[in-house]
Amino acid sequence: MLVVMKAQATPEEIQAVCRHIEALGFRAHPLPGAQRTAIGITGNQGEVDRGNLEEMSGVAEVIRVSKPYKLASRDVKEEDTVIRFPGTDATIGGRNLAIVAGPCAIENREQAFVIAEQVAASGAQFFRGGAYKPRTSPYAFQGLGVEALRIMAEIRERFGLRIVTEAIDNETLDLVAEWADVIQIGARNMQNFSLLKHAGRLRKPVLLKRGLSATLDEFLMAAEYIMSEGNYEVILCERGVRTFTDHSRNTLDLSIVPAVQRLSHLPILVDPSHGTGKRDKVLPMARAAIASGADGILVEVHHQPEKALSDGPQSIYPDQFARMMDEIGQIAPIVHRELPRGIHVEALAANPHDASARQ
Amino acid sequence: MLVVMKAQATPEEIQAVCRHIEALGFRAHPLPGAQRTAIGITGNQGEVDRGNLEEMSGVAEVIRVSKPYKLASRDVKEEDTVIRFPGTDATIGGRNLAIVAGPCAIENREQAFVIAEQVAASGAQFFRGGAYKPRTSPYAFQGLGVEALRIMAEIRERFGLRIVTEAIDNETLDLVAEWADVIQIGARNMQNFSLLKHAGRLRKPVLLKRGLSATLDEFLMAAEYIMSEGNYEVILCERGVRTFTDHSRNTLDLSIVPAVQRLSHLPILVDPSHGTGKRDKVLPMARAAIASGADGILVEVHHQPEKALSDGPQSIYPDQFARMMDEIGQIAPIVHRELPRGIHVEALAANPHDASARQ
Amino acid sequence: MLVVMKAQATPEEIQAVCRHIEALGFRAHPLPGAQRTAIGITGNQGEVDRGNLEEMSGVAEVIRVSKPYKLASRDVKEEDTVIRFPGTDATIGGRNLAIVAGPCAIENREQAFVIAEQVAASGAQFFRGGAYKPRTSPYAFQGLGVEALRIMAEIRERFGLRIVTEAIDNETLDLVAEWADVIQIGARNMQNFSLLKHAGRLRKPVLLKRGLSATLDEFLMAAEYIMSEGNYEVILCERGVRTFTDHSRNTLDLSIVPAVQRLSHLPILVDPSHGTGKRDKVLPMARAAIASGADGILVEVHHQPEKALSDGPQSIYPDQFARMMDEIGQIAPIVHRELPRGIHVEALAANPHDASARQ
Amino acid sequence: MLVVMKAQATPEEIQAVCRHIEALGFRAHPLPGAQRTAIGITGNQGEVDRGNLEEMSGVAEVIRVSKPYKLASRDVKEEDTVIRFPGTDATIGGRNLAIVAGPCAIENREQAFVIAEQVAASGAQFFRGGAYKPRTSPYAFQGLGVEALRIMAEIRERFGLRIVTEAIDNETLDLVAEWADVIQIGARNMQNFSLLKHAGRLRKPVLLKRGLSATLDEFLMAAEYIMSEGNYEVILCERGVRTFTDHSRNTLDLSIVPAVQRLSHLPILVDPSHGTGKRDKVLPMARAAIASGADGILVEVHHQPEKALSDGPQSIYPDQFARMMDEIGQIAPIVHRELPRGIHVEALAANPHDASARQ
Repeated sequence: MLVVMKAQATPEEIQAVCRHIEALGFRAHPLPGAQRTAIGITGNQGEVDRGNLEEMSGVAEVIRVSKPYKLASRDVKEEDTVIRFPGTDATIGGRNLAIVAGPCAIENREQAFVIAEQVAASGAQFFRGGAYKPRTSPYAFQGLGVEALRIMAEIRERFGLRIVTEAIDNETLDLVAEWADVIQIGARNMQNFSLLKHAGRLRKPVLLKRGLSATLDEFLMAAEYIMSEGNYEVILCERGVRTFTDHSRNTLDLSIVPAVQRLSHLPILVDPSHGTGKRDKVLPMARAAIASGADGILVEVHHQPEKALSDGPQSIYPDQFARMMDEIGQIAPIVHRELPRGIHVEALAANPHDASARQ
Repeated sequence: MLVVMKAQATPEEIQAVCRHIEALGFRAHPLPGAQRTAIGITGNQGEVDRGNLEEMSGVAEVIRVSKPYKLASRDVKEEDTVIRFPGTDATIGGRNLAIVAGPCAIENREQAFVIAEQVAASGAQFFRGGAYKPRTSPYAFQGLGVEALRIMAEIRERFGLRIVTEAIDNETLDLVAEWADVIQIGARNMQNFSLLKHAGRLRKPVLLKRGLSATLDEFLMAAEYIMSEGNYEVILCERGVRTFTDHSRNTLDLSIVPAVQRLSHLPILVDPSHGTGKRDKVLPMARAAIASGADGILVEVHHQPEKALSDGPQSIYPDQFARMMDEIGQIAPIVHRELPRGIHVEALAANPHDASARQ
Repeated sequence: MLVVMKAQATPEEIQAVCRHIEALGFRAHPLPGAQRTAIGITGNQGEVDRGNLEEMSGVAEVIRVSKPYKLASRDVKEEDTVIRFPGTDATIGGRNLAIVAGPCAIENREQAFVIAEQVAASGAQFFRGGAYKPRTSPYAFQGLGVEALRIMAEIRERFGLRIVTEAIDNETLDLVAEWADVIQIGARNMQNFSLLKHAGRLRKPVLLKRGLSATLDEFLMAAEYIMSEGNYEVILCERGVRTFTDHSRNTLDLSIVPAVQRLSHLPILVDPSHGTGKRDKVLPMARAAIASGADGILVEVHHQPEKALSDGPQSIYPDQFARMMDEIGQIAPIVHRELPRGIHVEALAANPHDASARQ
Repeated sequence: MLVVMKAQATPEEIQAVCRHIEALGFRAHPLPGAQRTAIGITGNQGEVDRGNLEEMSGVAEVIRVSKPYKLASRDVKEEDTVIRFPGTDATIGGRNLAIVAGPCAIENREQAFVIAEQVAASGAQFFRGGAYKPRTSPYAFQGLGVEALRIMAEIRERFGLRIVTEAIDNETLDLVAEWADVIQIGARNMQNFSLLKHAGRLRKPVLLKRGLSATLDEFLMAAEYIMSEGNYEVILCERGVRTFTDHSRNTLDLSIVPAVQRLSHLPILVDPSHGTGKRDKVLPMARAAIASGADGILVEVHHQPEKALSDGPQSIYPDQFARMMDEIGQIAPIVHRELPRGIHVEALAANPHDASARQ
């Protein structure tokens, strides 16, 4: 159920509607749009009596939402969601492409800094690196943990890159939220509903990767779990699905990009590294992703992939990354996008998450 | 790496080998077999120097294990794992089939008792019921929580049924471990590695459902996560995988039953309810599962499926369950199994988990 | 569109309705049932005017068929189709299980006879063997062609086995129809519509294997292609579908057995050899198939599988076949079936397809 | 097995090697490259004795080919295959993108001409239209047959477009080869090996669509079937594979584009119409296909898709096609390609397939 307010509705009228919804035992989610505010109602098992709502001051109409997701739907919010990072001009969603690059895992300070410097030089605004690694084998390298978070905070300070890193359970979620700029939830946790709800209670953007066999509806419902707790800054990420094919590790499903954009206002990135699992297919699929209309790219870069502790075969070299940036920068205007001009180092001062502030 | 002890090795020799392994910084997992004990070594990134081990007293040989899983492998433990429930004659694995039946979710005390009484009367030894439900939608019924755990503890006391229920995160895991006899980890959490590790530190059997797109290796690696923490009582459960088909909700992959039995000593159950998603296919697939050699069945039963808060369309009626038990009881001897004769109520006294003990 | 005749309708009334339908430019398919005859109408793009039909003598009712298939549907023919083989008591469909066994390919006369003798001795009534092999590689053994057909005709004469063999194009279709008792259409040709139509014009039963990625609707539509040309003796065969799994060559989808039986009157066999691709999984899946309610089994048997020119790894040994027959014979009565007692050799005389009649 | 000739080998030496290979009972396939000629050997079941071959005059080396396909492999022919159409400057493969556009089916002369005029005006060089339609239902529109072939021959004459149309069996194959410029073999016939072999004996380029569940190896082996009969002009076409997803009709697997280009010298087109099944996803996926490096696009265009007899929902409007051409024309130089400048009408005179020549 969705309450659409009149264009001229006052903040007091909006608040009154929210209070009324909560008095009925439901949750109200005010979602300001360019023209007017819509208020999503969640928590209702069945029907909400629309009678009283329609008669409240400032209400334009009350509409039923047929899709199982509401807050993630364009019905509820027509304008694209643009996620901003205070103190910087980096965005995810909107006209500027978002480029997230870095190693699969933070292996040590030197490795991380070498890679960060190179991706920053090529124009990335976001740095990704695993601190907690969900590995198929319990005997594989599981990540450096808090030490990796500290290294990435230094990288943010030094290079102005915003930090994207994965949380794998409720405990690491709090740590990641404290140190990073974007909390990543991995494909294998896409339906870890407990984790989604916890992430929904935080106030940091969440990058949600599509599950290996998730349908579009399930993907948007996972986003809805986060949003239903009040965190509306969700970034979707296609990373390939599991099929019968064997020429790539997963099958990158780029048609989900226009499919998401039709149904949802949330931004969607594409990860051509996990989506193919093979270095020589990363550049073609990165170009294809941007051409399909994606809001950006999440890509694994390593200066010595043959020595990487994880995902070496799918990590590209820094010079390949530079070439990728050049190519997608040329494709961008064709799809009415642009590549931002890299980092403004003076923008960093205002950032409350600087590693220096911690010491 | 696996240290196979001589048949006549003494407990002291076994202990000495374990201490040596741990002194090297690894974990030792002694696994007693019918003839002799094998000791699994985990925690090693690369190679373990085998020299010293081979020369220790009581050691027959040291062998390299090629599969990524070790403790779950038949290489390490040849005999089938049989999980016993002290104070009862219920088992999972071994000659007796294990039948786990009950509603998708515990909806209220009366519903749970009505169903429990009927499944017990038909010969089930295990009762399943959801207290915490991982639902695709955040707006769907999420389970009664602790109240449901209490109701199931009463059911154990009254009917002698062992209780199987799902944990969805580390918090509910501790609660479930406290109240239930078997901790279920659902398909969507099969690669929630944090949850698997926590379950591995508990000393309750874990029923691990196969993920919707999990390969056999990934399935066994998920079991290995639990076992690598010291909990060797893992029960696998096939519940259908996601494919292109649309005549059933999932595609029940029965060929994994002989595939698991070839590679692993762990018991494997089949869930024909989630595996098909349709009531009229549950009985045929339950029969097929037993004929394929499965160690038992996990099945959803509801006396009023049309009113069920979840999974109604795939729940069978109690009289269908009775018929199912009759049919699989006839198939059992053909595959060298038998259906146990139901519950001995006098066996309950010794059970420390009785609900009465809590009040 | 379906015209249901009254129980007491005369042959003349039925004929009159058929003539009327054909005068309208459509095809009429009279389908006699136990109680009364239904007449399927095909060839209409849109709606058929039902007015005149309903008023014709002997017509009980005219009903619209909503499924895209008609002749394959239970709406049109409620009773199970039982395919009989004149001069023998072999059947496919109905109470008796149909067992089709033999090598992947006929390699030479001796190999074929050795295997035929053994499968006949164990109770098979049908012999399968490839004369024309659809091979993934153009450089692989493509079958002995007509020579293989001749060998199989001799086998029919000697052992009384009915012959099932595959046609791969319109040319081989005519040859196979001439020499064999059942024309097999392989999985890769399930949507070779030209071949299906040609098979529909013949008057030999057609065993249609499910395509590697065919949905249930597509499978039944392929049967409908054959039936729409007037050949109603179609036998469906599940042989595994392609999924992400890697522990078996294909994923045997046994839930299609009850799904087919609900929607269609056609018999359905299961091929556990192609369905798993691995010898050690054939017996468990054969038992599971019968337990799921299948009308029979199609299985590859070879006395020297390690020397087989194709499909060696999935062919079982004759003694494994004997054990399989014993086990499914025990399961049969539980699903209200029975294994026929093998071949009556005296039944052969009346068979017009004897190889001797050709020479 | 592959015989690589020296750069300076004479035609006589090449011929002598071919004769020798055929005297051994095998087939020789001379494949001229930019530097030197390689001769593929097919028809050998096992090993070919390399001794004599290596010592023949003009032979540089004899190498074993490990992949199951040979003639389709880059091992045998390193340079990209470029297919030329005599009397025109249209090509498939090479620097120029190939654009194939037209309706799913030829419905009548007027419809075909309207669409052909518009796609020619926007710069397509190839016209596609179905004369023989492989339809899932036997009751659906099956195509106009020869009448459609005649209409398309007129379109070639009028607009200078080369004609691409599908053959569905050996009979239609001969007709299509007679009238069209490129023979299409559809996804459902990708492993109709009889049809592939027949197509291999013709001397017209064959556009081979990937099967719905074909692996890359199977796809190249299907091409190999055609090539092993002597027809080396094979064009591959990705058109989506079947997966669990439901937001698009198929899952367009663009990562096969770089995968094919690594292993094979054959050109690969992409069909975003069947690959998505939805009009609003055709343009994004067409752009993505070109960005991934594909050699061109095969796309369904209809001026009245709501009235189309087949595939209406996935056909784009002519103005969308014009926009698509504009967008992919901008992407082309980024991937070192270009869009040809449309048709030179004067080039038509030399074409022996003009419809006029037939009357």
